[in-house]
Amino acid sequence: MSTKPTIGFIGLGIMGKPMARNLLKAGYPLVVHTRKRATVDELVAEGAKAGSSPRDVAAQSDVVITMLPDSPDVEEVVLGKDGVAEGIKPGAIYVDMSTIAPASARRVAETVGEKGAQALDAPVSGGEKGAIEATLSIMAGGPQGAFDAVEPIFKAMGKNIVLVGPSGAGQIAKAANQLVVGVTIEAVAEALALAEAAGVDPAKVRSVLLGGFAQSRILDLHGQRMLEGNFQPGFKSRLHQKDMRIVDQTARESGLDAPAAKLALDRFTALVEGGGGERDHSALRTLLKAKEPATR
Amino acid sequence: MSTKPTIGFIGLGIMGKPMARNLLKAGYPLVVHTRKRATVDELVAEGAKAGSSPRDVAAQSDVVITMLPDSPDVEEVVLGKDGVAEGIKPGAIYVDMSTIAPASARRVAETVGEKGAQALDAPVSGGEKGAIEATLSIMAGGPQGAFDAVEPIFKAMGKNIVLVGPSGAGQIAKAANQLVVGVTIEAVAEALALAEAAGVDPAKVRSVLLGGFAQSRILDLHGQRMLEGNFQPGFKSRLHQKDMRIVDQTARESGLDAPAAKLALDRFTALVEGGGGERDHSALRTLLKAKEPATR
Repeated sequence: MSTKPTIGFIGLGIMGKPMARNLLKAGYPLVVHTRKRATVDELVAEGAKAGSSPRDVAAQSDVVITMLPDSPDVEEVVLGKDGVAEGIKPGAIYVDMSTIAPASARRVAETVGEKGAQALDAPVSGGEKGAIEATLSIMAGGPQGAFDAVEPIFKAMGKNIVLVGPSGAGQIAKAANQLVVGVTIEAVAEALALAEAAGVDPAKVRSVLLGGFAQSRILDLHGQRMLEGNFQPGFKSRLHQKDMRIVDQTARESGLDAPAAKLALDRFTALVEGGGGERDHSALRTLLKAKEPATR
Repeated sequence: MSTKPTIGFIGLGIMGKPMARNLLKAGYPLVVHTRKRATVDELVAEGAKAGSSPRDVAAQSDVVITMLPDSPDVEEVVLGKDGVAEGIKPGAIYVDMSTIAPASARRVAETVGEKGAQALDAPVSGGEKGAIEATLSIMAGGPQGAFDAVEPIFKAMGKNIVLVGPSGAGQIAKAANQLVVGVTIEAVAEALALAEAAGVDPAKVRSVLLGGFAQSRILDLHGQRMLEGNFQPGFKSRLHQKDMRIVDQTARESGLDAPAAKLALDRFTALVEGGGGERDHSALRTLLKAKEPATR
């Protein structure tokens, strides 16, 4: 009946696994690969095929998706030995949905292009919840034709799907996203800490703030986590630190001084260096403790 | 038929005028006073009575509301010569809806209490739009009984109405609100500036970010203002600078180090000192200009 393209999916972590699962549910033939054998077995039990390497996955697929932690991981999986670039078919489309440096995204896209395939950078926002519920925001960079071709695939994983611009533009948009999210978490953390330090119930403050200009998805979801002291990820602080490094680097490369972005990077670094790297990024709240009042 | 209490309303600026107008529309007898005679005339033409001084307004009212720019204005209008405290009736309720220092709110409440009246601090969020559409968030501090008595009046001006705690708690909540709003404006400004500096359409970035964790009312409304370069207030930068001073002072008095709040205060100060004090607070965007790229 249908002739759905075969999708290769590499990287089945907190985000990648539910995303791949949604592709299976949507009826796409799927070939998967990840470092953890148990996760591959899990998806094979649900109908996926196992690929023995990124190269092997690419060789069997019309569309190859990667969802990996950082720029070096993507460069290794695509450009390294037995990598995607060695196996990808001419005319195939490579989609990196990881959050990596825009410059790295452009480098990978170029190599894939030399093999006669097209590349998109298509990082996401919406977290584990968005990945599970297929409500991710997907911000893409690359050629319009490739975007149009894979749009139905994106729709099986997300809801707010925008081609932002040429190669690398998706990563720029994601950097902007992580900047806003990181700084807003710090703002919400400081606001709730201020209420608590001044003797006012932070739960009531969150509640009333949600009805005005201070409303944000971060105040709603991460604010609630802060009130509960629930810092199970979610999105790990060390990954947000990595993202804020990308933001800082991209700003500097663009000649932009972005002080709040720099502050958020410093806060995530302090959190990670204090041993909080595996906690949810809302754990920035734990850095704020009222000392003895300075004046009164 | 009904025996609606007479409301005195002092301070008919960008916020106060539409708020007073909504009380008239809701059928409350209204006595008004403000510095601008023309504004008083306007509301008198719509059915209000004019009071000759804050004292005179208070002497004619069951509930006295002030909506003024800053702590010294409120202290002058309430505690000064011919002020509210001189005229207020025993059993009346005084409601200050201005944004002022929590310590100042407690001081005014104490004096009003000595006259046999009750006081609430009830600052608002939602801006001119919220004031006009009667959708303000109202965060109140003071006695439960006084809050219950004036709740119907609040409902004629706002939607999300919460008694946060005792006297001063409304101002603490408002400080938390202004902290979040100020820092989020800076975050959105940096994100859109980053997109532009890196050659990506900031309108597309705003649009895709609204669908994910970066969503906020600030990204929506103030982000749109930044794209249009429309910095007509709205909410003036110099008033947000004033509010961030209250935040900074309240944090210090509570022994809390809040670095993002401090950063936002510095940004508003730079904006005001650069001549932008009368522009909307979203004009923080104008402080961000990409220089020649540092590295590439």
